[in-house]
Amino acid sequence: RKRILITGGTGFVGSHLTDKLMLDGHEVVVLDNQFTGRRRNVEHWIGHPNFELVHHDIVNPYLVEVDQVYHLASPASPPHYMYNPVKTIKTNTLGTINMLGLARRVKATMLLASTSEVYGDPEVHPQPETYWGHVNPIGPRSCYDEGKRVAESLMVAYHKQEKVDIRIARIFNTFGPRMHMNDGRVVSNFILQALQNKSITIYGAGNQTRSFQYVDDLVDGLIALMNSNVTIPVNLGNPEEHTISDFAVIIRDLVGSKSEIVNKPKQTDDPQQRKPDITRAGELLGWKPKVSMKDGLKKTIEFFRKELQNEK
Amino acid sequence: RKRILITGGTGFVGSHLTDKLMLDGHEVVVLDNQFTGRRRNVEHWIGHPNFELVHHDIVNPYLVEVDQVYHLASPASPPHYMYNPVKTIKTNTLGTINMLGLARRVKATMLLASTSEVYGDPEVHPQPETYWGHVNPIGPRSCYDEGKRVAESLMVAYHKQEKVDIRIARIFNTFGPRMHMNDGRVVSNFILQALQNKSITIYGAGNQTRSFQYVDDLVDGLIALMNSNVTIPVNLGNPEEHTISDFAVIIRDLVGSKSEIVNKPKQTDDPQQRKPDITRAGELLGWKPKVSMKDGLKKTIEFFRKELQNEK
Ligand SMILES: NC(=O)c1ccc[n+]([C@@H]2O[C@H](COP(=O)([O-])OP(=O)(O)OC[C@H]3O[C@@H](n4cnc5c(N)ncnc54)[C@H](O)[C@@H]3O)[C@@H](O)[C@H]2O)c1
Ligand SMILES: NC(=O)c1ccc[n+]([C@@H]2O[C@H](COP(=O)([O-])OP(=O)(O)OC[C@H]3O[C@@H](n4cnc5c(N)ncnc54)[C@H](O)[C@@H]3O)[C@@H](O)[C@H]2O)c1
Ligand SMILES: O=c1ccn([C@@H]2O[C@H](COP(=O)(O)OP(=O)(O)O)[C@@H](O)[C@H]2O)c(=O)[nH]1
Ligand SMILES: O=c1ccn([C@@H]2O[C@H](COP(=O)(O)OP(=O)(O)O)[C@@H](O)[C@H]2O)c(=O)[nH]1
Ligand SMILES: O=c1ccn([C@@H]2O[C@H](COP(=O)(O)OP(=O)(O)O)[C@@H](O)[C@H]2O)c(=O)[nH]1
Ligand SMILES: O=c1ccn([C@@H]2O[C@H](COP(=O)(O)OP(=O)(O)O)[C@@H](O)[C@H]2O)c(=O)[nH]1
Repeated sequence: RKRILITGGTGFVGSHLTDKLMLDGHEVVVLDNQFTGRRRNVEHWIGHPNFELVHHDIVNPYLVEVDQVYHLASPASPPHYMYNPVKTIKTNTLGTINMLGLARRVKATMLLASTSEVYGDPEVHPQPETYWGHVNPIGPRSCYDEGKRVAESLMVAYHKQEKVDIRIARIFNTFGPRMHMNDGRVVSNFILQALQNKSITIYGAGNQTRSFQYVDDLVDGLIALMNSNVTIPVNLGNPEEHTISDFAVIIRDLVGSKSEIVNKPKQTDDPQQRKPDITRAGELLGWKPKVSMKDGLKKTIEFFRKELQNEK
Repeated sequence: RKRILITGGTGFVGSHLTDKLMLDGHEVVVLDNQFTGRRRNVEHWIGHPNFELVHHDIVNPYLVEVDQVYHLASPASPPHYMYNPVKTIKTNTLGTINMLGLARRVKATMLLASTSEVYGDPEVHPQPETYWGHVNPIGPRSCYDEGKRVAESLMVAYHKQEKVDIRIARIFNTFGPRMHMNDGRVVSNFILQALQNKSITIYGAGNQTRSFQYVDDLVDGLIALMNSNVTIPVNLGNPEEHTISDFAVIIRDLVGSKSEIVNKPKQTDDPQQRKPDITRAGELLGWKPKVSMKDGLKKTIEFFRKELQNEK
């Protein structure tokens, strides 16, 4: 039984991770400023003796004694991280420095939720961890991409210099229940549009690709990584790749919707293709995703259907 | 007459900038933690009514009322920035955030001394400002390279969001008097080795290239950029490119030394070639370097000769 800190623990990924670690019998402290997180996501644990929810912004220092830190706090979808680019960078720099200072002081193992966005608009396909990436340092996504890149550099620097025990997960597109309804990401947009028989909006030609992983697979990967001794970055994602156009059709069919599919203007610096090379995770962690996209989508559609009903 | 803040003003570039701005009649405040800077570099101004030297570390906030901020504070040579990678990143993140907060509060124009290292080990040659770069986010140079990249992202974010008036100079290798004797950079190493008739040490095969600009040209470029209205990044460097092997011979001959030239092991992630495309600086600022490499080297050799004599 471990004492575990999760930053961003009321968010989409963080709340699933909380569930798993609580069910495994650990003590969990969640730090969140509730920017994109929701208390509701962890409500079922409130009052449990092993659980604590703290409303705190990680750009300010925080003291707690723990064995492990899962550092997930950061806006994650383009509309959220572009909403306040300065804050996005502060969270990923000041926030990461504070958590590394904490990990250093209490000798905790610290895992950073990094992202496939460190590869930017990749010119190597699929992307192995050795790829250095193709990122625009001054583009609209740079607050997030460069914020996460320097967060990785910080992890490595504290590891080398201060002997902090580190883990770096490079997370690829993930979906599942508790995704944000209105954060403009493709999975939520398409499902909501399909459920409401509104037009499904493809940005650009739709030939750009993504690979989607179900959140339960990611949570298993994060825990496997944390409990390994792997200090180099590890991709966590599902290598099953689809074009966004295909994806629109798959979702419409699963929902059984009559939505039409329309094309909207391309977004600036939108990566053309993305697919994880997960050889390293297989070799070092024995991890690979288990949930098929269709099974995952069914659960997610169910979640959104209920959310829409609750709104009424 | 303007009130001007220079962070890193007792360093190599900062002290030359101080000289020029003081001679132009401005009021200059220098902030420096004296990590690699030397009081001696600005000693001739101490006591002057327009000049103030403040011993301060920019990772802590600082209040002053100024019209312009030249933000140069950062270790700059590989041995210096790798000496304490955590501090290098803190200086470029926390330090830059503090200076942007200051610029925002007092509505000053802020210029960031960025670097050609944002291009990393470039795969495009020469490097225009539109090139996104090729940087290893977890390599030994990443504390500096990623620190500067995210500093640029911060500049852009404060510009867009907080309307801070910004300038971004991407500085290529620069040399001249007051360079550090022992920071391990190629110009200082080779000159010192030649002056002392010691072996001139080439790292790797010596076919890697650099383009060296004389510090007076850089200072003119920085001032031209500051007083323009150009908010996009601008390369400042001398496009005259040399291999490191050639460079060793040029310096040995200028010094008139008997040093032999020897090859040492290659450095990790050492950029293979580097040469600025300075079209943008020409078009937008009417700037180009004026000092020939040989003239610049003669002055620099003279400086080092005196330094060696003083040491005796
Ligand atoms: N979901 C994905 O597809 C995906 C892909 C790559 C990486 N990631 C990374 O995984 C992590 C979690 O993503 P998510 O999808 O759960 O996003 P999310 O927005 O649901 O969760 C992020 C959480 O962090 C909190 N937060 C943000 N800034 C904070 C601050 N300054 N102080 C304290 N809390 C703060 C938010 O309130 C939220 O609860 C993020 O770091 C994200 O970058 C996610
Ligand atoms: N010289 C070059 O070839 C070159 C090339 C590209 C970019 N640059 C950039 O130009 C700037 C100046 O470089 P330089 O060659 O004069 O280096 P330098 O080391 O001589 O000067 C840097 C100055 O910053 C000060 N400093 C460092 N950390 C600080 C902190 N936390 N608080 C306050 N002061 C701090 C140092 O004491 C020093 O005086 C740097 O930002 C560097 O990255 C230089
Ligand atoms: O339990 C802790 C220990 C440190 N920090 C913060 O982490 C940052 C980085 O810590 P580090 O040890 O690197 O730096 P220092 O304390 O020397 O500034 C500092 O701002 C601390 O306030 C924190 O939030 N919680
Ligand atoms: O309504 C939408 C939302 C997104 N996308 C596209 O779907 C892909 C994935 O976008 P998302 O924002 O989900 O994630 P990210 O770009 O961060 O991978 C991108 O090419 C988007 O342009 C789309 O076509 N329609
Ligand atoms: O004259 C000033 C104004 C601000 N800051 C610092 O700059 C940082 C960023 O300022 P910003 O306005 O973005 O943030 P806030 O003050 O809202 O945290 C803060 O840590 C301030 O302490 C500073 O050093 N000098
Ligand atoms: O004694 C030395 C010092 C440097 N270099 C090489 O000279 C080039 C420029 O190195 P420097 O550290 O001056 O600057 P930077 O790598 O930052 O351009 C690099 O390829 C170094 O490997 C060298 O051959 N011998």
